[in-house]
Amino acid sequence: MPRYGSMFGPDVTFLGVDRCALDEPESYADADVVVLGAPFDGGVSHRPGARFGPQAIRTTDYNPHDGSRPSLALRVDPLRDLRVMDAGDVETFAGDIDGSLKAIENAVATIATSGAVPVILGGDHTIALPDVTGVAQHHGFGRVAVLHFDAHADTGDVEFGHLHGHGQPMRRLIESGAVRGDRFIQIGLRGYWPGPETLDWMADQYMRSYEMGEIVARGLDTVLAEASRLALDDCDAVFLSVDVDVVDPGMAPGTGTPEPGGLTSRQLLDAVRRLSLELPIAGLEVVEVSPPYDHAEVTAFLGNRIVLEALSGMAARRRGAAWDPTRPLLDGRGTRPPR
Amino acid sequence: MPRYGSMFGPDVTFLGVDRCALDEPESYADADVVVLGAPFDGGVSHRPGARFGPQAIRTTDYNPHDGSRPSLALRVDPLRDLRVMDAGDVETFAGDIDGSLKAIENAVATIATSGAVPVILGGDHTIALPDVTGVAQHHGFGRVAVLHFDAHADTGDVEFGHLHGHGQPMRRLIESGAVRGDRFIQIGLRGYWPGPETLDWMADQYMRSYEMGEIVARGLDTVLAEASRLALDDCDAVFLSVDVDVVDPGMAPGTGTPEPGGLTSRQLLDAVRRLSLELPIAGLEVVEVSPPYDHAEVTAFLGNRIVLEALSGMAARRRGAAWDPTRPLLDGRGTRPPR
Amino acid sequence: MPRYGSMFGPDVTFLGVDRCALDEPESYADADVVVLGAPFDGGVSHRPGARFGPQAIRTTDYNPHDGSRPSLALRVDPLRDLRVMDAGDVETFAGDIDGSLKAIENAVATIATSGAVPVILGGDHTIALPDVTGVAQHHGFGRVAVLHFDAHADTGDVEFGHLHGHGQPMRRLIESGAVRGDRFIQIGLRGYWPGPETLDWMADQYMRSYEMGEIVARGLDTVLAEASRLALDDCDAVFLSVDVDVVDPGMAPGTGTPEPGGLTSRQLLDAVRRLSLELPIAGLEVVEVSPPYDHAEVTAFLGNRIVLEALSGMAARRRGAAWDPTRPLLDGRGTRPPR
Amino acid sequence: MPRYGSMFGPDVTFLGVDRCALDEPESYADADVVVLGAPFDGGVSHRPGARFGPQAIRTTDYNPHDGSRPSLALRVDPLRDLRVMDAGDVETFAGDIDGSLKAIENAVATIATSGAVPVILGGDHTIALPDVTGVAQHHGFGRVAVLHFDAHADTGDVEFGHLHGHGQPMRRLIESGAVRGDRFIQIGLRGYWPGPETLDWMADQYMRSYEMGEIVARGLDTVLAEASRLALDDCDAVFLSVDVDVVDPGMAPGTGTPEPGGLTSRQLLDAVRRLSLELPIAGLEVVEVSPPYDHAEVTAFLGNRIVLEALSGMAARRRGAAWDPTRPLLDGRGTRPPR
Amino acid sequence: MPRYGSMFGPDVTFLGVDRCALDEPESYADADVVVLGAPFDGGVSHRPGARFGPQAIRTTDYNPHDGSRPSLALRVDPLRDLRVMDAGDVETFAGDIDGSLKAIENAVATIATSGAVPVILGGDHTIALPDVTGVAQHHGFGRVAVLHFDAHADTGDVEFGHLHGHGQPMRRLIESGAVRGDRFIQIGLRGYWPGPETLDWMADQYMRSYEMGEIVARGLDTVLAEASRLALDDCDAVFLSVDVDVVDPGMAPGTGTPEPGGLTSRQLLDAVRRLSLELPIAGLEVVEVSPPYDHAEVTAFLGNRIVLEALSGMAARRRGAAWDPTRPLLDGRGTRPPR
Amino acid sequence: MPRYGSMFGPDVTFLGVDRCALDEPESYADADVVVLGAPFDGGVSHRPGARFGPQAIRTTDYNPHDGSRPSLALRVDPLRDLRVMDAGDVETFAGDIDGSLKAIENAVATIATSGAVPVILGGDHTIALPDVTGVAQHHGFGRVAVLHFDAHADTGDVEFGHLHGHGQPMRRLIESGAVRGDRFIQIGLRGYWPGPETLDWMADQYMRSYEMGEIVARGLDTVLAEASRLALDDCDAVFLSVDVDVVDPGMAPGTGTPEPGGLTSRQLLDAVRRLSLELPIAGLEVVEVSPPYDHAEVTAFLGNRIVLEALSGMAARRRGAAWDPTRPLLDGRGTRPPR
Repeated sequence: MPRYGSMFGPDVTFLGVDRCALDEPESYADADVVVLGAPFDGGVSHRPGARFGPQAIRTTDYNPHDGSRPSLALRVDPLRDLRVMDAGDVETFAGDIDGSLKAIENAVATIATSGAVPVILGGDHTIALPDVTGVAQHHGFGRVAVLHFDAHADTGDVEFGHLHGHGQPMRRLIESGAVRGDRFIQIGLRGYWPGPETLDWMADQYMRSYEMGEIVARGLDTVLAEASRLALDDCDAVFLSVDVDVVDPGMAPGTGTPEPGGLTSRQLLDAVRRLSLELPIAGLEVVEVSPPYDHAEVTAFLGNRIVLEALSGMAARRRGAAWDPTRPLLDGRGTRPPR
Repeated sequence: MPRYGSMFGPDVTFLGVDRCALDEPESYADADVVVLGAPFDGGVSHRPGARFGPQAIRTTDYNPHDGSRPSLALRVDPLRDLRVMDAGDVETFAGDIDGSLKAIENAVATIATSGAVPVILGGDHTIALPDVTGVAQHHGFGRVAVLHFDAHADTGDVEFGHLHGHGQPMRRLIESGAVRGDRFIQIGLRGYWPGPETLDWMADQYMRSYEMGEIVARGLDTVLAEASRLALDDCDAVFLSVDVDVVDPGMAPGTGTPEPGGLTSRQLLDAVRRLSLELPIAGLEVVEVSPPYDHAEVTAFLGNRIVLEALSGMAARRRGAAWDPTRPLLDGRGTRPPR
Repeated sequence: MPRYGSMFGPDVTFLGVDRCALDEPESYADADVVVLGAPFDGGVSHRPGARFGPQAIRTTDYNPHDGSRPSLALRVDPLRDLRVMDAGDVETFAGDIDGSLKAIENAVATIATSGAVPVILGGDHTIALPDVTGVAQHHGFGRVAVLHFDAHADTGDVEFGHLHGHGQPMRRLIESGAVRGDRFIQIGLRGYWPGPETLDWMADQYMRSYEMGEIVARGLDTVLAEASRLALDDCDAVFLSVDVDVVDPGMAPGTGTPEPGGLTSRQLLDAVRRLSLELPIAGLEVVEVSPPYDHAEVTAFLGNRIVLEALSGMAARRRGAAWDPTRPLLDGRGTRPPR
Repeated sequence: MPRYGSMFGPDVTFLGVDRCALDEPESYADADVVVLGAPFDGGVSHRPGARFGPQAIRTTDYNPHDGSRPSLALRVDPLRDLRVMDAGDVETFAGDIDGSLKAIENAVATIATSGAVPVILGGDHTIALPDVTGVAQHHGFGRVAVLHFDAHADTGDVEFGHLHGHGQPMRRLIESGAVRGDRFIQIGLRGYWPGPETLDWMADQYMRSYEMGEIVARGLDTVLAEASRLALDDCDAVFLSVDVDVVDPGMAPGTGTPEPGGLTSRQLLDAVRRLSLELPIAGLEVVEVSPPYDHAEVTAFLGNRIVLEALSGMAARRRGAAWDPTRPLLDGRGTRPPR
Repeated sequence: MPRYGSMFGPDVTFLGVDRCALDEPESYADADVVVLGAPFDGGVSHRPGARFGPQAIRTTDYNPHDGSRPSLALRVDPLRDLRVMDAGDVETFAGDIDGSLKAIENAVATIATSGAVPVILGGDHTIALPDVTGVAQHHGFGRVAVLHFDAHADTGDVEFGHLHGHGQPMRRLIESGAVRGDRFIQIGLRGYWPGPETLDWMADQYMRSYEMGEIVARGLDTVLAEASRLALDDCDAVFLSVDVDVVDPGMAPGTGTPEPGGLTSRQLLDAVRRLSLELPIAGLEVVEVSPPYDHAEVTAFLGNRIVLEALSGMAARRRGAAWDPTRPLLDGRGTRPPR
Repeated sequence: MPRYGSMFGPDVTFLGVDRCALDEPESYADADVVVLGAPFDGGVSHRPGARFGPQAIRTTDYNPHDGSRPSLALRVDPLRDLRVMDAGDVETFAGDIDGSLKAIENAVATIATSGAVPVILGGDHTIALPDVTGVAQHHGFGRVAVLHFDAHADTGDVEFGHLHGHGQPMRRLIESGAVRGDRFIQIGLRGYWPGPETLDWMADQYMRSYEMGEIVARGLDTVLAEASRLALDDCDAVFLSVDVDVVDPGMAPGTGTPEPGGLTSRQLLDAVRRLSLELPIAGLEVVEVSPPYDHAEVTAFLGNRIVLEALSGMAARRRGAAWDPTRPLLDGRGTRPPR
């Protein structure tokens, strides 16, 4: 079956889901979700390695690679309740950022146009530009809000003499009109970049950026509720962009530009679950998982679980039942009569 | 002195406590606690390595191995206030799960019958079956509740064609009657295993399983209080089973089946302290510490501290004084007159 | 330009700030802050390696080494708003603790006397003795309070037959009168050291030590507020001593005597920010970063950010504006008119 | 297609060769070689982890996983000149050594009986028993010589109370008659095991064991020539058993029982090439690659290359051309006329 | 002083030699050697990370960074006997291979034209194209032979749809005429790439490639002598291109495309010493040192020593004295009279 | 039993041999060899960590810790044929080099005076001064030759303002007269230290230093034969000082000052075996094993095997039988009649 292969390793699919080929539309005609690898790390300013992210996110699990994952928390099986397929990796070349981004955008747009939700496995965050643009081509420029988990704003202008790179995609997306600045919501920013000029530009766009200090002071739940309301105000859907470095590097070391003081893994997984359950997700990307810097695969596991939490939330949302996190896992009323 | 030796390294004891030999009852006649290594990892479904757990848990500390550990928080010295001895490692063989489990059960039962509290250092979680059974043989089947910290329910039925393995001991314990299903309490579950059929079986047993979502929503303190009440309802004592993977793998990477989104180390240590202080502990196991996947011994340190916190709680409970965590470490009234 | 060089690596400065030479007073006459490396680890009781701490803390960042770091949270650029210089590493020799401590004390006192705030990069915690003493020589014995973040009290008496070592500096500081015992405030203690005799001595000095149990029970914010009040009661300034092992080793593995159950990185960074913003800082040390035990530089990054947070707080304090952590990063009123 | 899956990871084949299913004989009817994973490490006496060997050996390469590997040295493409297929992993369970060995033996015998050469990827060396027995079932007991590269003799009798384990298979093979003791040739032994009693038993069997001292003194080439002559004296074929620990652990750290002072990787690859070129190979196993102890995949790469060198030698042998290692790679007479 | 800075870390020079700025010709007017960093890894086909090579090669040493290194073997001090300067890193961007290669070529040509020998620290092997071209611009196309140590031929044509990448520079150099094919000498090739078509192209160019099998069979000394004769036959000088992966990955793990079965570090250092001593070196590059995959800096140390050995050979060559490797280090006739 | 304990870990003995206490002469009255730990690394100029060397060398093995190790090559059991005991670790303190060296010297002299051969496990190479001096006190100053395996000459004069450190002990030993300069033989030197002045001093002492270039050119066997002859010319015995960094850091990364281009592990083990077999050994030290920089314990294993090879050689020497390395391990004449 002709399809994208896997660039950096054997040709496998996300946890064993079925394959599809983007140039064979019938192969994913009934898909709810299409997973796509974007093993591009030619845009990083510091540590590379995210090219191995798609392979790691697809395969890092201790359960069988059988295309089934029953969620304990939500009581759905996202890989079965949804029709999830994997289209392989877009062929990219680190040394050619322009060509690579174009190839990714085409692939994402193809998926979005088919009606499936693209789930893109990065790669570095440069790919947010083609990922979100590809989705916006289908939903309409300005109609998709972005919820962006990251330690960094990624709104730089020109770096290393180039317009593209993993520190700049968010600016490009707003400049092109793919996303409205006032529906671009950032969660988890911290540290010492960017400088005032860029922050002024961001303010000019009416971006809403939650720095970690604000998150700690107001509580993540409050922030998420506020962000959710904003995202759906005159937008039709949400693109969820998760840079794994939003988590503290002490818990997620396998990434390229680690910034101490982030969320815990628990916080991120809860947030992704809640947002996917409550909002209409038009696309998801998980980026900046860099296996060369990982230890014992902990960051790769986290990347895999971010995807599963999002898919589980989407499956639960489709099922329509309300979710009460205080509900016990077991209700004590099983299939046999009580003793 | 004839005794179990140490299977995977030199023959040492937990932080330098005295040795005993299980086949010489007089050697541990006055023991309050007997430490036992169970270096068995033949039951793991994924990453092995927990066979090196007993050695790591026994020896990983920066303080002298002198059989003394004054607890700052509780102001007891668990290794001196209690008579703690170490019986060495049960000889097990990864390739023979049945024989290994039988040997462990015999050793644990021997300790329990002597009146001492067995503290078993795993090893993978398969050993919960002989550990708890050995204790139940002394206290009576159905008389000991289990408080089980884990990312996983470990209630699988048959896996790899076998009844035993690290994903199944809890089912076997309930099936045999060693533990009542409705006094089997699990804390920290999460992720994508087991599936609905197994969950139904668990519900049929009236197990009480706290998934992380519930823990986050209701608070760990609330959960612990509820669990404590349940555990002592018509049971005489509690077996504490601590799978180190209940902690987030970002903080405790040295384990075999890491599931992101767990407790912090601080939360687990506080929970173990509190439960050991408030409840009658009949046995303790610390399992799934897998040194090959550890970094800088952080998970081994955690394993060692779990044991010390439990022993400290037990020592403080025996002393009888109430514990107020808001009390300052120093009361400002030392042995010399104030200036 | 004659100056201290860098002992363990090339001669570089903290993130590219300007150099100065301590024997050329004019070279740092206008400095607000002088960074000093103290690559001494001859005092550790367990794992060495902190000698590589100064180099790691100075250079671990993904941003350019350009002497500028705009703080997102506080909207200051600590390396530009303050005049920060780097004097290089004091030449020390692990095998000669007495000579090394004397050299460090002289260097710190030289900086303090010049009116600049010394920021000392350790090295093991033995250097607290010369660091604080050097500062006290300028401000007056007993006039500087110490806020001490650490898993360990470091108040041992004689160890390995010596008065000096990384477990003893706090006792020596109180004995000499450099610091009043009742203005010595410790945050983050835990574990199984020291024993009752030392704790009695500490109580006799009216030290205030917040064990992690108290911090969890009362909340870190409450503790910090209480500590701040106490520190400024009849003292003129505060020395901030940050042992990176106050953070949980699961998040900060690169240290010598890891004690599970610590703060998160987020908590520590927030605490350092707040204290530096609210209190007059007379000196800062960041110690016990041990690169040989680090992974993917996560602990080195943390060490670097501790320094930056402290400097940012100092810069914001000088600016005088109040700080409201709930304030959004961007106020939505940029430089262009709203759409 | 029904087939063995891959136990510890996604279902992939050796460098992308075609799949086959052992229970569908037509699927490998034309195979020259069938690769089989035996992810069993329940027999190790020390460090486990070889269960991840099959996955690592299959996939560790920087070239595309395209089922083609042109050998520079021999100018063959072993994956194309031979019909190489991959049957997946035999399902084994570490805790059940007897059942696992039986399953492996059946699979190997099935392959051998089909006329293909089985290439078994371990797993620990326990599998030599089923691997060689399975081959001998086809070729006749006593008709296949074993060339055994290893630091260890693996001729122990009973260990941990069991007849099977990774230190005993060679004794079992001779006892059963599967292999004649005087056609059992060991290369690379060293260190401090086994003791005199076992060595006497080995001498009684007329085994020929080349300790490293002899290899250094006489030269590896001389030893290989002598071993080759002996192997084919009244035997029809050769089973090549390669324990990766025959290489010095300084160059191949990813293994379970490392013994310093071994061959270089270059020596081993040259030896495997030569033997596969000169001798009729009836089976090959590559064992004791333990990824948890590897660094930067260097041992996994070596395992992959051992297989490729053997297959290349077999392909070149079939082609029939003599091999002259002094021949230049390029002969200077390409397809265009000289300048 | 305006100069290239250091892209990935603080601005330092090779072991502390003096700085120069390429746009200030007077700053290196008297230089014999100019070191240049080329931190480009946008051309790698597999593992990236070589961007951190220049920093690692410059700084990895346990001796002081004082611009002096007395060679024990050759009794020269290459950093003092030669005037060695460091121009910093060429600014490159992984995502723009064409622009990066142009910038490197310009910098190398500038150095070569000044009369100094460029020593380029990679970076991946893509840079061989601009490195050798820059040198050939000064010495004349076809006048400089290349001695190329590598596991790989790097003579691919188009890969990932591009003419440039780390597997293709040697073809481009021959195509452009910068180097004569029959004066392109490769040492250390092995493994399973490239295929017959490329080998035919190489043969057509009359390249001379020593595969490891030939090197083992004939001896490295014989090969080096033959290569040296060929290199100087109608060429004026030699460019030495050292890909660190020519060494066995078991000894030099920190690289991107490891191929087992290589030289030992000792062999490579001896070869570099000898060639630099015997041949007129017009340029040197050390490439493919990838710190993320290194352990304990062993590959970085090797990269540093390759540079030092080459410089030492060049210094000894200039001194003119013959070198006898059998000569004792000490001649027993020191500065004091014998006892 | 009062004895030195183990400073950095539990109190264990070398592979389980019996304990003795230096202050109880009767406890080691019949010892042939006494093992002594010297966990001092306060003298290193670069990476510390060798303080964990004694523990690592004592315990790193996959065989049982049972006080028996039958040598395959020499057919002796050094731990049984010799009476080997372990006295524990001398208590040292990194911060006090003078006191530490004195304590070590006293302990070594005590052992030597008892008639046993001291085997000292370092620690850094600073301890050569007390180790050799302690032995010379018993055998007479100038009567013991030193055979010194090392990458470094360790003949520096004053460093860091001190006479002692790991780069200076050999000078101190010659200055004091403990060892004659012309009976001080160094094997394996290489790299870029020390400089000409120190080399002149060494020549003045008539030291004989074999740089790696000479060893490669003349062959290690030739060098060892020459060294052996020289060592016994008017000396009574030999002290064997083995710095593990004589081996290439690519094979033995766990050390503090790695210098590429060293011996292989095989070469070192063969050399130690041969020298211990042929020469009267008065003392042995194995130093500079630094576990924090090791991987998968490969350097620790090597350290353990260096000790075992030396003891095996000593045991074989005592037995008196000639050793022929070309002799087969098995002679084919076992205990049963041939078939």
